[in-house]
Amino acid sequence: MKKNILLINGPNLNMLGVREPDVYGYNTLESIINELKGIAEKYDIALETKQSNSEGDIIDFIHSAYGLYDGIIINPGAYTHYSYAIRDAIVSIDIPTIEVHLSNIYEREEFRKRSVIAPVCLGQLSGLGPAVYKLALYYFAEVMAND
Amino acid sequence: MKKNILLINGPNLNMLGVREPDVYGYNTLESIINELKGIAEKYDIALETKQSNSEGDIIDFIHSAYGLYDGIIINPGAYTHYSYAIRDAIVSIDIPTIEVHLSNIYEREEFRKRSVIAPVCLGQLSGLGPAVYKLALYYFAEVMAND
Amino acid sequence: MKKNILLINGPNLNMLGVREPDVYGYNTLESIINELKGIAEKYDIALETKQSNSEGDIIDFIHSAYGLYDGIIINPGAYTHYSYAIRDAIVSIDIPTIEVHLSNIYEREEFRKRSVIAPVCLGQLSGLGPAVYKLALYYFAEVMAND
Amino acid sequence: MKKNILLINGPNLNMLGVREPDVYGYNTLESIINELKGIAEKYDIALETKQSNSEGDIIDFIHSAYGLYDGIIINPGAYTHYSYAIRDAIVSIDIPTIEVHLSNIYEREEFRKRSVIAPVCLGQLSGLGPAVYKLALYYFAEVMAND
Amino acid sequence: MKKNILLINGPNLNMLGVREPDVYGYNTLESIINELKGIAEKYDIALETKQSNSEGDIIDFIHSAYGLYDGIIINPGAYTHYSYAIRDAIVSIDIPTIEVHLSNIYEREEFRKRSVIAPVCLGQLSGLGPAVYKLALYYFAEVMAND
Amino acid sequence: MKKNILLINGPNLNMLGVREPDVYGYNTLESIINELKGIAEKYDIALETKQSNSEGDIIDFIHSAYGLYDGIIINPGAYTHYSYAIRDAIVSIDIPTIEVHLSNIYEREEFRKRSVIAPVCLGQLSGLGPAVYKLALYYFAEVMAND
Amino acid sequence: MKKNILLINGPNLNMLGVREPDVYGYNTLESIINELKGIAEKYDIALETKQSNSEGDIIDFIHSAYGLYDGIIINPGAYTHYSYAIRDAIVSIDIPTIEVHLSNIYEREEFRKRSVIAPVCLGQLSGLGPAVYKLALYYFAEVMAND
Amino acid sequence: MKKNILLINGPNLNMLGVREPDVYGYNTLESIINELKGIAEKYDIALETKQSNSEGDIIDFIHSAYGLYDGIIINPGAYTHYSYAIRDAIVSIDIPTIEVHLSNIYEREEFRKRSVIAPVCLGQLSGLGPAVYKLALYYFAEVMAND
Amino acid sequence: MKKNILLINGPNLNMLGVREPDVYGYNTLESIINELKGIAEKYDIALETKQSNSEGDIIDFIHSAYGLYDGIIINPGAYTHYSYAIRDAIVSIDIPTIEVHLSNIYEREEFRKRSVIAPVCLGQLSGLGPAVYKLALYYFAEVMAND
Amino acid sequence: MKKNILLINGPNLNMLGVREPDVYGYNTLESIINELKGIAEKYDIALETKQSNSEGDIIDFIHSAYGLYDGIIINPGAYTHYSYAIRDAIVSIDIPTIEVHLSNIYEREEFRKRSVIAPVCLGQLSGLGPAVYKLALYYFAEVMAND
Amino acid sequence: MKKNILLINGPNLNMLGVREPDVYGYNTLESIINELKGIAEKYDIALETKQSNSEGDIIDFIHSAYGLYDGIIINPGAYTHYSYAIRDAIVSIDIPTIEVHLSNIYEREEFRKRSVIAPVCLGQLSGLGPAVYKLALYYFAEVMAND
Amino acid sequence: MKKNILLINGPNLNMLGVREPDVYGYNTLESIINELKGIAEKYDIALETKQSNSEGDIIDFIHSAYGLYDGIIINPGAYTHYSYAIRDAIVSIDIPTIEVHLSNIYEREEFRKRSVIAPVCLGQLSGLGPAVYKLALYYFAEVMAND
Repeated sequence: MKKNILLINGPNLNMLGVREPDVYGYNTLESIINELKGIAEKYDIALETKQSNSEGDIIDFIHSAYGLYDGIIINPGAYTHYSYAIRDAIVSIDIPTIEVHLSNIYEREEFRKRSVIAPVCLGQLSGLGPAVYKLALYYFAEVMAND
Repeated sequence: MKKNILLINGPNLNMLGVREPDVYGYNTLESIINELKGIAEKYDIALETKQSNSEGDIIDFIHSAYGLYDGIIINPGAYTHYSYAIRDAIVSIDIPTIEVHLSNIYEREEFRKRSVIAPVCLGQLSGLGPAVYKLALYYFAEVMAND
Repeated sequence: MKKNILLINGPNLNMLGVREPDVYGYNTLESIINELKGIAEKYDIALETKQSNSEGDIIDFIHSAYGLYDGIIINPGAYTHYSYAIRDAIVSIDIPTIEVHLSNIYEREEFRKRSVIAPVCLGQLSGLGPAVYKLALYYFAEVMAND
Repeated sequence: MKKNILLINGPNLNMLGVREPDVYGYNTLESIINELKGIAEKYDIALETKQSNSEGDIIDFIHSAYGLYDGIIINPGAYTHYSYAIRDAIVSIDIPTIEVHLSNIYEREEFRKRSVIAPVCLGQLSGLGPAVYKLALYYFAEVMAND
Repeated sequence: MKKNILLINGPNLNMLGVREPDVYGYNTLESIINELKGIAEKYDIALETKQSNSEGDIIDFIHSAYGLYDGIIINPGAYTHYSYAIRDAIVSIDIPTIEVHLSNIYEREEFRKRSVIAPVCLGQLSGLGPAVYKLALYYFAEVMAND
Repeated sequence: MKKNILLINGPNLNMLGVREPDVYGYNTLESIINELKGIAEKYDIALETKQSNSEGDIIDFIHSAYGLYDGIIINPGAYTHYSYAIRDAIVSIDIPTIEVHLSNIYEREEFRKRSVIAPVCLGQLSGLGPAVYKLALYYFAEVMAND
Repeated sequence: MKKNILLINGPNLNMLGVREPDVYGYNTLESIINELKGIAEKYDIALETKQSNSEGDIIDFIHSAYGLYDGIIINPGAYTHYSYAIRDAIVSIDIPTIEVHLSNIYEREEFRKRSVIAPVCLGQLSGLGPAVYKLALYYFAEVMAND
Repeated sequence: MKKNILLINGPNLNMLGVREPDVYGYNTLESIINELKGIAEKYDIALETKQSNSEGDIIDFIHSAYGLYDGIIINPGAYTHYSYAIRDAIVSIDIPTIEVHLSNIYEREEFRKRSVIAPVCLGQLSGLGPAVYKLALYYFAEVMAND
Repeated sequence: MKKNILLINGPNLNMLGVREPDVYGYNTLESIINELKGIAEKYDIALETKQSNSEGDIIDFIHSAYGLYDGIIINPGAYTHYSYAIRDAIVSIDIPTIEVHLSNIYEREEFRKRSVIAPVCLGQLSGLGPAVYKLALYYFAEVMAND
Repeated sequence: MKKNILLINGPNLNMLGVREPDVYGYNTLESIINELKGIAEKYDIALETKQSNSEGDIIDFIHSAYGLYDGIIINPGAYTHYSYAIRDAIVSIDIPTIEVHLSNIYEREEFRKRSVIAPVCLGQLSGLGPAVYKLALYYFAEVMAND
Repeated sequence: MKKNILLINGPNLNMLGVREPDVYGYNTLESIINELKGIAEKYDIALETKQSNSEGDIIDFIHSAYGLYDGIIINPGAYTHYSYAIRDAIVSIDIPTIEVHLSNIYEREEFRKRSVIAPVCLGQLSGLGPAVYKLALYYFAEVMAND
Repeated sequence: MKKNILLINGPNLNMLGVREPDVYGYNTLESIINELKGIAEKYDIALETKQSNSEGDIIDFIHSAYGLYDGIIINPGAYTHYSYAIRDAIVSIDIPTIEVHLSNIYEREEFRKRSVIAPVCLGQLSGLGPAVYKLALYYFAEVMAND
């Protein structure tokens, strides 16, 4: 049966390819999503994607997933480090959620080492560039299905 | 004279009854508000209610109360713990404000024990379930009137 | 059926009306208790009241409530901030307890912001003057009865 | 050649003249901006101004400046102290940015002393009232031009 | 020669068997002491026992031991974590003292991990239930005698 | 006119001469008080003295001074470092109070360096042995009288 | 061309299936490695695996990889949280290394949230059970090859 | 039935009698173990003893106890203060374990006050010299048997 | 009327142009002051300048300004971060003072982020190179005059 | 025999009477010293006085006292809070030294509560205005003489 | 008389010349030791050298020095920052020990600034490259001999 | 070619031989310098020496070395722990500098463990008595010359 996965990208990820390319790479978010959609299709996954710079919007996206999705992949951007409100939103809907980060958040500024969201997720993937999105898809498609 | 009270509910409170019912109970926000409106009527209070998941919206609600309300009851949800912007908004309008929480924020995670908003409120009521809204209404109706 | 409620006031509350009246108001503890007794009667509550400046006495009061009271209202005064012994006493008797404070403990000195007792109470009411006692009574009389 | 400068005011600055006038002064944001526009004209600067209480909106304003402005003046209000998302937005567009504050943030509450945004700005001006906007304009007009 | 040992139990230990039996067990303090007295007799120890919820009383008990006892066994309850006054009392009389705890204070709340009293004791025994009292008696009877 | 001064000694000071004589000296509290009474007489001061190991008693002593004494000299012993309740008691009666310590609390354990009581006293005298009592008397007698 | 990948498992991972199965699952390390070897074969990867409870051995394993492997997958177990020596070993050989954890280290004890090793790795994968090993293999096989 | 108890001594305990004799006493580990073996025999305990300076070895000892021993007595030496790997090993085998220390770790350097291992043990005995081993044996022999 | 402004430069600023030119620029202090004197003249300001590496000298400069100057511009160099004595000197003379820094102290080492002097100044300007001196002059000349 | 006492006043004390008179009073340092000289004469004390704003000078004053004075009274001003160099100077000469403060340093800013100098003094007197100098003289004259 | 000196190198020092050469230089450990042996010979020192990546081995090396060596030179590598077990080993044998580091540990990551071993050594030499070994040898040969 | 080395001694080092001889030894600074001058001559080093108790003087000494010396040896005394101004002075002149300490600063008070100056030096030598000066000279003469 087709799985429904929601991919949420948080603040400043719309600037991918523009923003600090030596940290985040030269691909735009659009090109990354296009590649992911191709992969999702092969995995028989219906992949919905959202992006917003607003904490409130991201909470709304999460709420709207309630009862409709099998999994969430979220890159909360800088909200990772202080948005207890996004954390509470994830808890409120009880859908398996994987937190991802393009850069290795553990080799950068001190404040980036703390995620207030990871404790309520299934797991966290960080530091492998856009591959983290693929790995999360792969997990939902191949691994979780066989559990 | 009829009193005007504004009730503001913050992020994730729209998920009441869905979100962690063992922590927050099985009542929806709608049913709680309906009961409160009945009580308000008895107290001769005009009760206006707002909810948003967006920090910016909540600040706008507070500003819009300026000069129009006699009191504010606010459940800032997770913004309680970091929104200095909501704190500044409350200070900017100078209306008596009571902070309320459904759960006892002092028996949960460490980060929930700190409110950055309470220092600029009249007081804080926490941990008695939806009754905290009733107690705040009761305070504005009965107690404050007699001071 | 008549409810039995125990009200415990901790250190320095016997000095109400004398002690820092701009912080704590001009009413004496006696006059506040008289008013509460009137309210309790209307609620069909038997209200017993105790006050002591001694941590040991307060622990004894709490123990003596075991099996005899339906609820406890406690204003632990400055013991709020360090008496792990009072905290353990409350846990030992398993009676619903509400912590109250006359002043808003969150807008005063840093040390007043931490309660070591609140984590084992049902909830905490702070900052509305003597009204916090009334709200706690109201909770036991009206709200808890209907749960 | 005419310079394009974007002035962004964050949360609660729309309440200037209302909010804590002993801290922030009696001028409204509108009157301050009017005066700044006059000054900008003299400096041959095209001054665009934005205000929002929403963190997401402010990030959008910053992104929209990409490639179009020669400098940004930002008063992030209380977001100064926790919005790593605004910090990342400023880094993403690589335009010289000056952080300004009306009040001396170093003589107020402890939390106001830490700016998470200043480390990615050109500099920070604080504590001289509305003059900080003028000084920032003056910097872009006179000083930067001659560098 | 018969040894004189003083056993002091601090706050809430009078509630043993009532208080959190899953943490502290189902035996009352009385039954524990009776068993200890039997053991003491076999060891030729005169065992005196005291209990109080009052920090001041416990200090008085300790002072009164001066010059009369060969050893003290003390379970300071929650005073363990903040009573520098009890600590000073133990130092003032210079009698070998063993601090004991029924529960393993290192697997509970953070605040229970710090003893301000242990640094002035001979040693600390924690976490083996009422057996800690027996071990302390055994130490004074068998081990210390042979040193 | 004769001045009324109350001298309060806190926990373990009844053990002076016994307790750690290399830290606190070989004089008993009784001999120190006798010498102080002689000095007080010369200064035309009525000196009342109290000692207790109980925090509650010390609070009671302070309350009982209300309206009757011109000054208080207090050596709070180890309560110096955590008794916010004694601090509140001193504030409640508004009588000039001097905190004294026999030993130099700044050259001993870390915890002794912090006084929670000194901030509400007129001043603090520490580290000169029993002379601190004399200096405090001298202050009330000679200096304060001439102000 | 065939890739050489070294998989290092640290302390207590030899107890998988025995140790806290509700946290780490019921599969033994042997069965997990067998499954991984099958996957590696399909990816044309030569997978070498090592396990030791000794910090020194793990450092030796890492050194021995120098110049021979294309990538390292390491689950440092509890050494994650304090072994700066393993961290230095990884830096010394300059081979792309991925840190993995079976459990979500961010939802457990405080000390598990800090990795001293992650800052010198390519990235970190945590919390998806044995799937983290598969994801790391998948990364080296599919993603890294195409970069 | 005969009980099997494993006694593990950690780093530097092989130097007993040599190392800081004023802190740890003049008995060698060998003589202590000989005495313990005699006591064990009387208690019908088969006492196996191990010592190593290597963290990895100690973990191996613990794993090897799995399913074979009724109890473990461990003196982890300085590993007490940082070896989360030994902590995990103890959890992995689920055998009642008592942590012991010859010296009173609470009266020495600050770092010795924190045990990362005690939270997963049955209890901790510290500060009574070699007697702590005897007390632990006594507990397994007499007390645990009767529970 | 001509304004009198005192410019004080602290430790190491005499090395400008030599010291870390990539941080502080290639201009010498002398050339900067010459340019400032020109600007001051245009503003009808009498600009007096002082430099010293000695904390005591700087305090003396500040005291000597008492009653003679309309404003002080101070670059306290590294004393910014610990000289409570300079802070007290500024308070003692009650003249409007602006703290300036050539580099953005918020993007450098952690210790540079804290100013112990800013809380007693009118404001702080940092990070715009020698322009901060000009901005401060501009403030005293144009803005302050019109207040 | 005449005693030689050296009185050292540190930074900003030359501004007494000018600097924050509501905190430090309206007397100048000169008038205070004149009064002290009168008192010293009565006590048969030769009182030498020094003042400097320079840390180096104060260290020189202390060194120069070596072997010549019977006691030192020092008000280190703001150096109290960070001058480990003055602390070392006092230790180097081994003369009884009393630290004094005009204001109660425990009721002011947080940083004023820590003295790095007090641990090497005989004692500390704070918060009684210029009387602290008199009390210190009184101590050297009357009390120390009789020890 | 010939002196016996033991040189112990800890984890990752076997990778010298490979590991981060811009930090640690291009010489291998072997070539450094060869040079040191030549120097030792000239100083009439018998130089024994050991290296291990294992904490347990290093402790064994230290114990084995007991009674046989006149001095130890130790570069504990990353164990410097957490091995309390190595610290205890050094204390246990009471031989003068010098801690050395090739790089300046004070200009690198925060965690490298703390040595848990230095407090029990004679001294620490850091940051001069392989010269630190030579300086330590020179100390034992020339300086210590003449003391 | 002859090397020019500047040796700077900071506060209280002029008291060597007087100050705490059990910590710093019985040699005067003069005798140490005489011995060093002899050694320097042998090494063909022109050794200039300075001492001051003043932070400002030490900064001046460092500045004056600019362009004239090949190396600096500095014992900053207690300024080691807080003088960011001396740190900046060393950076400003870019001459290889070695920080030295007579005593082992890591076995003394907590505050002595932190050097704010070491991060900008070539290295730090501590704890070997006056030999640290010799070792630094030896480094400049023998080792540095051969690099």
